[in-house]
Amino acid sequence: MRIAVFGATGYGGIETLKLLVHRKDVEVVWIGSDKQEGKKLVDVIPMFRNTRFASLGFSSQQGELPDVDFALLATPHGFARSIVPTLLEHRVRIIDFSGDYRLPDEVYEKWYNKAVTGNSNNWNAVYGLPELNREAIKEAKLIANPGCYATTANLALMPAVEMDLVDVEHLVVDAKSGVSGAGRNPHLTTHFVEVSESYKAYKVGSHQHTPEIEQTLWEARRRRNGSLEQQEQVRILLTTQLLPIKRGIYVTAYGHLKKSMSVSEVFEIYQERYANEPFVTVLPPGEVPEIRQISGTNQCHLSVHVDDRTETLLVMATLDNLLKGAAGQAIQNLNLMSGTEEATGLSGMAWW
Amino acid sequence: MRIAVFGATGYGGIETLKLLVHRKDVEVVWIGSDKQEGKKLVDVIPMFRNTRFASLGFSSQQGELPDVDFALLATPHGFARSIVPTLLEHRVRIIDFSGDYRLPDEVYEKWYNKAVTGNSNNWNAVYGLPELNREAIKEAKLIANPGCYATTANLALMPAVEMDLVDVEHLVVDAKSGVSGAGRNPHLTTHFVEVSESYKAYKVGSHQHTPEIEQTLWEARRRRNGSLEQQEQVRILLTTQLLPIKRGIYVTAYGHLKKSMSVSEVFEIYQERYANEPFVTVLPPGEVPEIRQISGTNQCHLSVHVDDRTETLLVMATLDNLLKGAAGQAIQNLNLMSGTEEATGLSGMAWW
Amino acid sequence: MRIAVFGATGYGGIETLKLLVHRKDVEVVWIGSDKQEGKKLVDVIPMFRNTRFASLGFSSQQGELPDVDFALLATPHGFARSIVPTLLEHRVRIIDFSGDYRLPDEVYEKWYNKAVTGNSNNWNAVYGLPELNREAIKEAKLIANPGCYATTANLALMPAVEMDLVDVEHLVVDAKSGVSGAGRNPHLTTHFVEVSESYKAYKVGSHQHTPEIEQTLWEARRRRNGSLEQQEQVRILLTTQLLPIKRGIYVTAYGHLKKSMSVSEVFEIYQERYANEPFVTVLPPGEVPEIRQISGTNQCHLSVHVDDRTETLLVMATLDNLLKGAAGQAIQNLNLMSGTEEATGLSGMAWW
Amino acid sequence: MRIAVFGATGYGGIETLKLLVHRKDVEVVWIGSDKQEGKKLVDVIPMFRNTRFASLGFSSQQGELPDVDFALLATPHGFARSIVPTLLEHRVRIIDFSGDYRLPDEVYEKWYNKAVTGNSNNWNAVYGLPELNREAIKEAKLIANPGCYATTANLALMPAVEMDLVDVEHLVVDAKSGVSGAGRNPHLTTHFVEVSESYKAYKVGSHQHTPEIEQTLWEARRRRNGSLEQQEQVRILLTTQLLPIKRGIYVTAYGHLKKSMSVSEVFEIYQERYANEPFVTVLPPGEVPEIRQISGTNQCHLSVHVDDRTETLLVMATLDNLLKGAAGQAIQNLNLMSGTEEATGLSGMAWW
Repeated sequence: MRIAVFGATGYGGIETLKLLVHRKDVEVVWIGSDKQEGKKLVDVIPMFRNTRFASLGFSSQQGELPDVDFALLATPHGFARSIVPTLLEHRVRIIDFSGDYRLPDEVYEKWYNKAVTGNSNNWNAVYGLPELNREAIKEAKLIANPGCYATTANLALMPAVEMDLVDVEHLVVDAKSGVSGAGRNPHLTTHFVEVSESYKAYKVGSHQHTPEIEQTLWEARRRRNGSLEQQEQVRILLTTQLLPIKRGIYVTAYGHLKKSMSVSEVFEIYQERYANEPFVTVLPPGEVPEIRQISGTNQCHLSVHVDDRTETLLVMATLDNLLKGAAGQAIQNLNLMSGTEEATGLSGMAWW
Repeated sequence: MRIAVFGATGYGGIETLKLLVHRKDVEVVWIGSDKQEGKKLVDVIPMFRNTRFASLGFSSQQGELPDVDFALLATPHGFARSIVPTLLEHRVRIIDFSGDYRLPDEVYEKWYNKAVTGNSNNWNAVYGLPELNREAIKEAKLIANPGCYATTANLALMPAVEMDLVDVEHLVVDAKSGVSGAGRNPHLTTHFVEVSESYKAYKVGSHQHTPEIEQTLWEARRRRNGSLEQQEQVRILLTTQLLPIKRGIYVTAYGHLKKSMSVSEVFEIYQERYANEPFVTVLPPGEVPEIRQISGTNQCHLSVHVDDRTETLLVMATLDNLLKGAAGQAIQNLNLMSGTEEATGLSGMAWW
Repeated sequence: MRIAVFGATGYGGIETLKLLVHRKDVEVVWIGSDKQEGKKLVDVIPMFRNTRFASLGFSSQQGELPDVDFALLATPHGFARSIVPTLLEHRVRIIDFSGDYRLPDEVYEKWYNKAVTGNSNNWNAVYGLPELNREAIKEAKLIANPGCYATTANLALMPAVEMDLVDVEHLVVDAKSGVSGAGRNPHLTTHFVEVSESYKAYKVGSHQHTPEIEQTLWEARRRRNGSLEQQEQVRILLTTQLLPIKRGIYVTAYGHLKKSMSVSEVFEIYQERYANEPFVTVLPPGEVPEIRQISGTNQCHLSVHVDDRTETLLVMATLDNLLKGAAGQAIQNLNLMSGTEEATGLSGMAWW
Repeated sequence: MRIAVFGATGYGGIETLKLLVHRKDVEVVWIGSDKQEGKKLVDVIPMFRNTRFASLGFSSQQGELPDVDFALLATPHGFARSIVPTLLEHRVRIIDFSGDYRLPDEVYEKWYNKAVTGNSNNWNAVYGLPELNREAIKEAKLIANPGCYATTANLALMPAVEMDLVDVEHLVVDAKSGVSGAGRNPHLTTHFVEVSESYKAYKVGSHQHTPEIEQTLWEARRRRNGSLEQQEQVRILLTTQLLPIKRGIYVTAYGHLKKSMSVSEVFEIYQERYANEPFVTVLPPGEVPEIRQISGTNQCHLSVHVDDRTETLLVMATLDNLLKGAAGQAIQNLNLMSGTEEATGLSGMAWW
C-alpha cells in the first residue's frame, strides 16, 4: 500500500515512520512538513540514517499529493478539516490524529474554543478505537484516531460503565502524561529546566478530551444496554497533569460502586471484556501497571482495585501516548482498514 | 539550645542539619548513625565541608547521649519507641519524624503491620501539625511529626471538612511523591534505571498514612463542630504514586460537594482558614500549584477548584516532602517549642 | 539454535531476551538466575507478558543445563571462569559478557583486583569486536564480548591508531555512561536521588577497561603495520563518568596529531575504515553524535574533528551500552558464529 | 544600597533576586524585562509570593531608570553595550553578566560572530573573577562578570598554569553544562523530550568562552612570572556538552605534565593557591567533585589527579552555572565593590 504522512516532523509523525520503516507491505511515498520543505528526512531526524526512508524529501503540505491509498494526518487540530474533503474526493482513505473529527461541531467548538470552518463533521468519520469499533474501522474512509488521554481513560472505564458497576455521573479521571504529549514545538512549559524535577496540573476541568471520553463511554453503554432511550449522562472530571518524562500516560480512575463487589468479580468482568484484545492486558489482582513496562510498545496495561472502606472502584491504566495513544493506534487502524493482520509491526518490546 | 539529631545520614536528618547549620541560637552537640559511627559528617556528606558541622562525629545510637534540650529523631518506624522513655526521663523534649506516636496502638499495628512493643502510645504525644495544634505544640514534651503525605492531604482537605463542604465518607486523595520519600536505603524500587522515565502506584488502598489523615480531619471537624458525639466517620481512599523526581509531593483531592458552591466561595473559606499561616498559601483562583515553586522551601501551595458538571470539589496541594513534609515541619515545631519566632531559619527560596 | 541465557534478570540478560523474543530461528530453552530460581519470567519482568518467553522458568545457575548450542553469560565478572570449562566440554559455544576472558591473567589480576582462580585464560577466547575480529568470531568456541566503554573507545580510535595519525602514548578518553552500566543490583551510587540532577567521575585512572582498550588498539595497529616488533605502547587515560540517564555511552577522545591534517582527510580515513560495517556510522563533517539518536539500537555513531589551534584530533562516539556495548554486540556475534546474516534482529530504531 | 536588575525574568536574573531577597542592606528598586513590562514579579515567578519583592513591577529596559547605586545586567550578549555608557555617566556602577566587556573588540567579533557597535571596549572593565582580580574589583566601575564555563576552567587550571606544571599550548577542557546554561528562551534544543535521556556536544572547537579562558590563564601566568615579554601562548581545546540536568557545570581538564610530579605535590600547590578563597575547595586526594554537592551554592569544588602512565595532569572542577558561574559570582563582586563582607548572602547549602 502507498502511504502519505502529513506532519512528519512532529512526535506522532516520527513514530509513525519508525513503525513503518521495516514493513515490506508498505511504501511511504510522500512526507509532508511546511517548515522542513525540501530537506531530506535523514538531515532532520538523524536516526533514519541507513534506513530506506533516509532520502525521503519533505514536501509542502499545501501542494499536490501523488497517488496514495492512505493519508496519515499527524497534524495539529484544525489542519485536517482543510484537506480531508479533497483527499476523500481522490478516494484516499484517511487516518486523522487530531481532534477535528472526533466530536459533533458544537461540542468541538465549545471545548476546543475554535470555530468550525470549511466543512462540518458530517463525513461519517469512524472513531478509531478498535476495542469499541473494530468492524466499522475495517470499512472506514475517514478515521478519527482517538486522543491519548481519551484512549487511556476509555480503556480504563469502558467495562465498568458498560456493566453498570459505578455511578456514571461522578467519575473522576486523574490523568498524568509525559511531555511529548504537548507536541514538539518549543514553549516555556516544555523547557527542560521548567519541567525536570517538577510536576503540575493544567487545564483543570476544561481539557478537550473530556467530551471525547464521555461520548465514547456513553456509546459503549448504549450498545450494551440496547434500546434504552433516556439513559443517564456520563460525566467525568478529568484532571490532566504533566509528568517529567518523555513518554507515557498513567490514569487513575475512580467511580462510586453501585453495589458491593469483590476485586475478583471486577477482574473477571474486565478480563472477559478484553480477552481477545491484542493490545489490552488486565493485570492479575495485586499488581499495578508501570509506565516503563509499556513505554515504546502499543500495549495498554490495566489493573482494577476495590476499596471497601469508601465503596470505590479504582482502575489504573497506562499506555505510551505516542503509540497506543497516537501512532501505534493509527497503524493498528491502518492494519484493520487494509485487511492486514491487526498486530502487524506492533510487537516492539518496552524500552527501559 | 542544645540538640541531638538521630538518623543523621538519612534524607530527613541531612535536611535537618542543613536547616540548623547557620542558626546561631542552636548548637548541634551530637549526631547519631549506626552505620557511620566514628566517621566525621564531612566525610559522609561532603556538602558540609567548610561549615561549623564539618567535624561533628557520628555516634552510635545505642550509646550515651550528652546533655541536650531537644532530640530530633529522623529515624525509621520502630526506633523511637525504643528510646523515647529514657529521653523523657532525662527531660529531653522530643520531635519524632516516624509514625511511632501518631496513631493509637491498635491502629498502628493494623496499618504498619507491626506489633507495638515496649511502651504503648500513652505518652501524650502531640501531633505536630502547627496549622491544627499550634498551642499544644508549644508545651509538648513529645511531638509526633506528621507524615509527608498526611501533611499534604490534611492541609488540602481540612477547611472543606471543617466547614462541611463535602461528603466526608468518600474522599479520594490521589497523591504523588518524589523518590526521597522512600528513604535513602538502596532498593531496586529506587534504582535510577527503574524509576527514571517511569511512574507507578504502590500500596494501593493500604498506605499507612490513611488512618493518620482520617483521624486528623476527624479531629479538626470535631473541634469546629463542638460537642457532636456521633459524627460521621471520615473515610479516604489514598492512592500513593512514585514520581521520577527527587523531592516534592503533589496531591489532588476530590470530594463530592454537599451543596452547589462557587469557586470564590470555597476560595474565601480556604483563604480565611489559612490567613495567618506562615507556610500555607492559597493560590488565587485560576492558578495551580507546581512542585518547582516550593521545592527546597517549607511552603505548602494550595488551589481550589469546583467542577459543576460532576459536583466535585478538587483541591490541589504541593509541598517539599523533606521540608514541610519532614525536617522543615520539625524545625517549625522546634521553634514553637522553644519560644523562637516560628519561621526562623525557614525562609529559603525554591530551587529550580 | 538452542540457547541458554545466564544472568537473565540483569540489564544485559533482559536486553538479550528482548532481542531474541521475536526470532523464529532461536529457541531459548533455559534462563538462569540464582535469586529468582523457580519463578516465571513474566512475574519478574512484566513486559514479557503475552510473549512466547512469558512462562520460561528461572533455573539455578549451579545446576544441570539442558542440551544447548550456545550459552550467553550475562553474568558478573568471576562467574564465567567457574563454568566455561564444563560448557566447552559439552561442546557448548559461549559468549561471555564479563571481563573474565578479555585479558591475560596478570593484567586481569592487576586491574580487576581479583585473583584468577580455577582456570587461566588459555582457552583461546576470541575478543568479540566484529569490526576487528569478524573472521575469527565465526569459528570461535568462546567469545569474550567486549566491555561497553571499551567498544566505544576502540571504535572511536581504531582508524586513527591504525593509520598512525596521533601520538599513541598520550591518548585521552573522556567517557560518560548511563546508570545501567553499573548493573541492576541497588547501591547508594545508583539510587535515583543520588544520581538525578548530578554528575561525577569515578575510578579515575583505574577503570578496568583501560588495558582492554590499550591491547585492542595495539593489536589493530600491529595487524596494519605488519611485522613491526617493537612498536610503541598504546597508552590511554580513561576518565569514566556517570550520566544521569538510563542508557548510552558518550566518548570524547583526544589525540595529539602527528602531522597537520584537515578534517576531510580524517573523515575519509574513518569513512573508508568503516564503509562495510553495518553498525558503525561516521557522521558527515559538522555533525556530532547524540545519545538519543542511537539509544535502543545496535548502532555506533562517530564524528571526527580537528582543532588546528592545539593540533588535536577529537573523535566523538556514542552507542547504547546495553546493546552495541553488551547484548546487541553479543547477538551480532551469535549471528556471526551461527552463520546467520550479521544484522538479523538488530534493526530496531532509536527510542526518544 | 539601591539596585536595578536588568533581564530579571531570565535564569540569571531570577537567581540574582533570590540571593537578594533576604538582604537587609540591599534595596531592589527596579527590575527590567521587555516581555513582562507592567506585570508584577509574583505573577511571573510565583515563588516570590509572600516575599518583599512580590509586588515589584517589571519596567521596560529602554526607559528611564530611578537613582541606583548598582545595575546588574543579567541580559543577553549585545545588550550591555547599548546602555553602559549612559549608566556610567549617571555614576551607576555596573556588573554585566554577558560577554560584552570580557574580550578585546576584535576577539569578540571573531568568536561571537557579531560586529561591535556603539562603543568599543575601552571602558576599563574589570574581569570579575575574585580569585584573580579581587583588589581591582573593589574599585571597579564596570565589571565583566565571567562566563560559566570560563570560571570553571579557569579555577581548574590557574594554579597549574601559573606554576608552569603543564604544556600550556595543548590544554584540553572537556566541559559539560546543565540546560539552564542555554538560557530561558525555549528552543528545540532545550525541549524536555529532546534533552532528557540524551547527551551531546555542541559548538565543538568554536565556543566563545575559549578566548576568555586563554586570556585569563595567560594573564594569571604573566603576573606570576613577572616581566616575561614573549611567553608562550595559552591554547585550549574546549569541548562543550549538554547534560540532561537543570544546573551545574563539570570540567575535566587535561594537561601534559612538564615533569613528573606526585599527586600530593600538585595538591599542595592547589591547596596553597586557594587557601584563603571562601568559594574554592580543593578536595583531599582520592575524592572527586560531584555536581549535587555544590548545586544551589556559590562553591567551586576541585580535585587534582596525576596519571603517570600518560604523564597527564587531570583536574576536575564543578560549580553551579547560575551561581558561582553567574548570579552568585555577581553578588560576590557586588559585595567586594560595596565594601560588604565578601561571602554575605552566599552561604546557601547544596540542594539534593
